[in-house]
Amino acid sequence: MSTPHRPLILVTNDDGMFAPGIRRLVEIARHMGEVIVVAPNSPQSAKGHAVTLADPIRLNQVDVFDGIEAYECSGTPVDCVKLAKNILLKRRKIDLCVSGINHGSNASINILYSGTISAAMEASIEGIDSIGFSLEDYSMDADFDPATPWIRSIIEHVLQHGLMESKLLNVNIPHSSLGPIRGMKICRQAEGRWEEEFVEGVDPRGLKFYWLTGNFKSNDTVDGTDISALREGYISIVPSLHDLTHHRAIPTLKSMEDLIPPI
Amino acid sequence: MSTPHRPLILVTNDDGMFAPGIRRLVEIARHMGEVIVVAPNSPQSAKGHAVTLADPIRLNQVDVFDGIEAYECSGTPVDCVKLAKNILLKRRKIDLCVSGINHGSNASINILYSGTISAAMEASIEGIDSIGFSLEDYSMDADFDPATPWIRSIIEHVLQHGLMESKLLNVNIPHSSLGPIRGMKICRQAEGRWEEEFVEGVDPRGLKFYWLTGNFKSNDTVDGTDISALREGYISIVPSLHDLTHHRAIPTLKSMEDLIPPI
Repeated sequence: MSTPHRPLILVTNDDGMFAPGIRRLVEIARHMGEVIVVAPNSPQSAKGHAVTLADPIRLNQVDVFDGIEAYECSGTPVDCVKLAKNILLKRRKIDLCVSGINHGSNASINILYSGTISAAMEASIEGIDSIGFSLEDYSMDADFDPATPWIRSIIEHVLQHGLMESKLLNVNIPHSSLGPIRGMKICRQAEGRWEEEFVEGVDPRGLKFYWLTGNFKSNDTVDGTDISALREGYISIVPSLHDLTHHRAIPTLKSMEDLIPPI
Repeated sequence: MSTPHRPLILVTNDDGMFAPGIRRLVEIARHMGEVIVVAPNSPQSAKGHAVTLADPIRLNQVDVFDGIEAYECSGTPVDCVKLAKNILLKRRKIDLCVSGINHGSNASINILYSGTISAAMEASIEGIDSIGFSLEDYSMDADFDPATPWIRSIIEHVLQHGLMESKLLNVNIPHSSLGPIRGMKICRQAEGRWEEEFVEGVDPRGLKFYWLTGNFKSNDTVDGTDISALREGYISIVPSLHDLTHHRAIPTLKSMEDLIPPI
């Protein structure tokens, strides 16, 4: 009898190793394959697709999840994926990368800022099926129980069928205050933006500082967007791609090709 | 006689205030409008769309460009744009944001990692016409002279006509070793990826470290991509958008909506 193939699953996040969200994701994934965890050693929310070029990066093996190989990394979420692939798992095929479960939504424009989804996107650029999971609840005692069977189903589905054309799913789960999860919807990213405010203050040395805060706004709540799915109590799944080209705008700019600067 | 409207131009970058690239961009822009410069106080290459949430941010007015209002910011390139808009230029309409000139290409996948283009993208999310400029030359004594009249023409064109549907241009300029610039091409972002290597070392305290390096690879050199335009000696202009949805993949995933987890 041959041993059935145990898929190799890389787990990461941006909230660090001690966030309840990653603990839940490891608990789900460990029943589905061989799990390795590489997560930042400090909170890396909103680090986007940052990578560390100007400084050395450290990796420390830690014993946080019973019987699971886990490493803390001093870099960004994207660094975690690069180190996992190139150093820790060199030459081995990663079957799936799951990132999260983030404490807070990464729907709409938040995909750009999110370390959680950027880590999954980095894996997808390397051809690895990847899923970023986020719960619409920022608190550290967020309730992951209602989401758990859905996350398990999504991971099982992707391990079984693969993601084919789309290598990356941005999965957001509605806040539990909206009642039981009503199902899942495949969506596009809604338009949205942050209305920033900066809290201004003076530090103990008498120097002025600014501290970023703000509110997320979206009016793009027509059917088919992630924001609309979440508001209706559905899990939103946005297939995502690392292509920022505004394809529709290409023909509208062709006349610029005729510009010749005066010498 | 009424005074003609002098457009308000925000200049930023990711290499910091003392990089020759931003100096050149300020020199070009100051003849076309009222310029304000907000740039990081440390190199912020490859910081992507990172924003600073967990720390205060500082702004210091500096006298670097003769007669031009300029501020050093302790945050990321995206923070620079947020502070410029919300604190320094509160209530004023910014007509154009230009970022760069970056020392090094931001074509293909590099748009994701680039602080330069992320700053311009942040402005575009706010509805501001924005252009990121990069020269395919990493050296600090890169020759910006051949690019200068082209950059001037592009900025003049955008100030005159606006960017309409596309709010963001990712402009890359070929290395001067390729000979005189042959013109401009409107392109899509080429597929590409970094083949990473990590230099492994041991620090003076005897602790192991990893330092990221690597080579950019792209085989997507068909006509119409930015990489192909650059290789042929043309300036590449990619209209870009903050939408990461993989639209074509949406119908291929619809069957996932039928998944119901076992309770």
